[in-house]
Amino acid sequence: MATYVVVHGAWHDGSLLADVAGHLEGMGWSVHTPTILGNGAGEDKSVGLDAAIGSIADYIAAHDLTDIVLAGHSYGGMIISGVYDRMPDRIKRLVYWNAFVPHDGESLDDLVPPPFAQLFSDLAQAGGSGGFSVPYPIWRDGFFSDGDGNLAQNAYDKLNPHPHATFADKISLKSAPGNWEVGKSYINGLNDAAMPHSLGWHPRLSERLGIFRLVQVMDGHEALFINPKGAAEALHMAGQD
Amino acid sequence: MATYVVVHGAWHDGSLLADVAGHLEGMGWSVHTPTILGNGAGEDKSVGLDAAIGSIADYIAAHDLTDIVLAGHSYGGMIISGVYDRMPDRIKRLVYWNAFVPHDGESLDDLVPPPFAQLFSDLAQAGGSGGFSVPYPIWRDGFFSDGDGNLAQNAYDKLNPHPHATFADKISLKSAPGNWEVGKSYINGLNDAAMPHSLGWHPRLSERLGIFRLVQVMDGHEALFINPKGAAEALHMAGQD
Amino acid sequence: MATYVVVHGAWHDGSLLADVAGHLEGMGWSVHTPTILGNGAGEDKSVGLDAAIGSIADYIAAHDLTDIVLAGHSYGGMIISGVYDRMPDRIKRLVYWNAFVPHDGESLDDLVPPPFAQLFSDLAQAGGSGGFSVPYPIWRDGFFSDGDGNLAQNAYDKLNPHPHATFADKISLKSAPGNWEVGKSYINGLNDAAMPHSLGWHPRLSERLGIFRLVQVMDGHEALFINPKGAAEALHMAGQD
Repeated sequence: MATYVVVHGAWHDGSLLADVAGHLEGMGWSVHTPTILGNGAGEDKSVGLDAAIGSIADYIAAHDLTDIVLAGHSYGGMIISGVYDRMPDRIKRLVYWNAFVPHDGESLDDLVPPPFAQLFSDLAQAGGSGGFSVPYPIWRDGFFSDGDGNLAQNAYDKLNPHPHATFADKISLKSAPGNWEVGKSYINGLNDAAMPHSLGWHPRLSERLGIFRLVQVMDGHEALFINPKGAAEALHMAGQD
Repeated sequence: MATYVVVHGAWHDGSLLADVAGHLEGMGWSVHTPTILGNGAGEDKSVGLDAAIGSIADYIAAHDLTDIVLAGHSYGGMIISGVYDRMPDRIKRLVYWNAFVPHDGESLDDLVPPPFAQLFSDLAQAGGSGGFSVPYPIWRDGFFSDGDGNLAQNAYDKLNPHPHATFADKISLKSAPGNWEVGKSYINGLNDAAMPHSLGWHPRLSERLGIFRLVQVMDGHEALFINPKGAAEALHMAGQD
Repeated sequence: MATYVVVHGAWHDGSLLADVAGHLEGMGWSVHTPTILGNGAGEDKSVGLDAAIGSIADYIAAHDLTDIVLAGHSYGGMIISGVYDRMPDRIKRLVYWNAFVPHDGESLDDLVPPPFAQLFSDLAQAGGSGGFSVPYPIWRDGFFSDGDGNLAQNAYDKLNPHPHATFADKISLKSAPGNWEVGKSYINGLNDAAMPHSLGWHPRLSERLGIFRLVQVMDGHEALFINPKGAAEALHMAGQD
């Protein structure tokens, strides 16, 4: 197999992908799960999208990774889109895992229902530091619907405040994802209702990729906690030649 | 666990949920499956929606059930919506199981394709007593698609005529489901085509709940007969804290 | 059980359904998997839709098959629609398996996104003989998304050029599928993205059948290679009484 770089989503960090990475390694992949700048406890939460993208591009360059499969989960879709824009030659395939697929000039906030963007903004404003968290009841039902209540609380306790500027900043891309000459895959969990299904991940965002490989599974948004083996299998299916 | 009250759908009665209830009890729940007024063989089939709702509210009051998870299957969604409107303080979470989610002033007939409502009306008119049944071929293919033919016939023979007025009567609700301050879940079976998927259960009706927990499974509309263990697992996932 | 006639899709031939047929026979069905005129290596690739339909109707007449369940996969939906139009009395149930459901006067090309029809036309023009193949990268990601890469290549090597006229020719039908008095089923694989899901197989094409039995599974478009046992189980579920 080749090298898999899996980029986490908002409120997460790379360490939370350890179980998924272990299963992928068991399938023969060399796996990296870097933490995006601005995530992690104690980090500067005023970080913006450009710096966040840069931190993963820097990681890939520093480790001189080439011919990689680059996956992004949720917010991680913004990151991998920006990384591909900066270093297309290092990337063999992009895997969007219930992830945002932006066009040039769009922010993550542009791709969610307007009330969500407003809630994020209100929460960040109230926090003061630039970082914010999703209230537990919303996360429990909206993000962790297919998990046990104890596991939900346990997982929630491992999350970290997310830098709000990375949601509000517009991305800069030289061309549209549908035109990118790279392998593309989209993993969609049928129990993932982090986006309301009337304005869902797939096909609304996935089809921006043009020709792509679809992998639909029964998982929800937090399969990395609830079903890490299944998540690894979906990533394997999406990332292989 | 807490107390689960599971309200059956049209043409059914509470006894048909015995297998599902058994599995839920095995998971630690205390389970009630009352029969709605107007259902059951030999019942008065001129019963309307208000009395049907009242019968389940009365059951809950008579047994002094509190802190309950209240699920409704299909037509049962009309019932649990009305019960919540009358006694919100007894209810911890509502679970809609491929169920109707009405707004104030709507009938079940308002939420199905107009030709369905016409067919229901014609069948009831022909019957004379106020009750009506779905013809077997429609039920076999439309409601029991994921089941064996012998089981389909066997299950069909256990159904009872449904009081048509409960489909035609408008419900009275003090506020919209999206504003109710109660836990909400929606179970959607991907093989449930009792509603045509161009006008489906989810997200068309589910998203009326506002923030809710989605549980999608592969089952069809009659999982209570075909996969009672799976139905219980979905109810458990939807109903737990 | 009864007799099952399973009609393959474009670029395929009847021999590729051998594994599926074996599993169906194990469930008690008598199974036929004829090859449509124009498919197979070395065949005349200038064949049109009318002759293609005629070849399967002739097969059924020659074997004097009656009371049959007639399934069509993908392009095979065009064929079984035409066969039913010609010999309705021999057919007990039609099973569309991620298949096209045409109305009178429509071609397969009318039912796919316009860029697909253009691509098919361009490829056929370039080929010269009337036959054409889908380029491997498109087939790998678009048709074989849920399969292993080695199996994808191996399966691709077994395909044969498809006669383009069968995609461009309009079908002639005496009445609309919704009015046909025959059992109808639709099998939809949730990983089947041969049609983009914004213009998907189901419910866009399936609901043209009127009342029908829906069987949704997790498979992709090429379950006959990737999961022949599952494909047979879906056909059994769709085809039984």
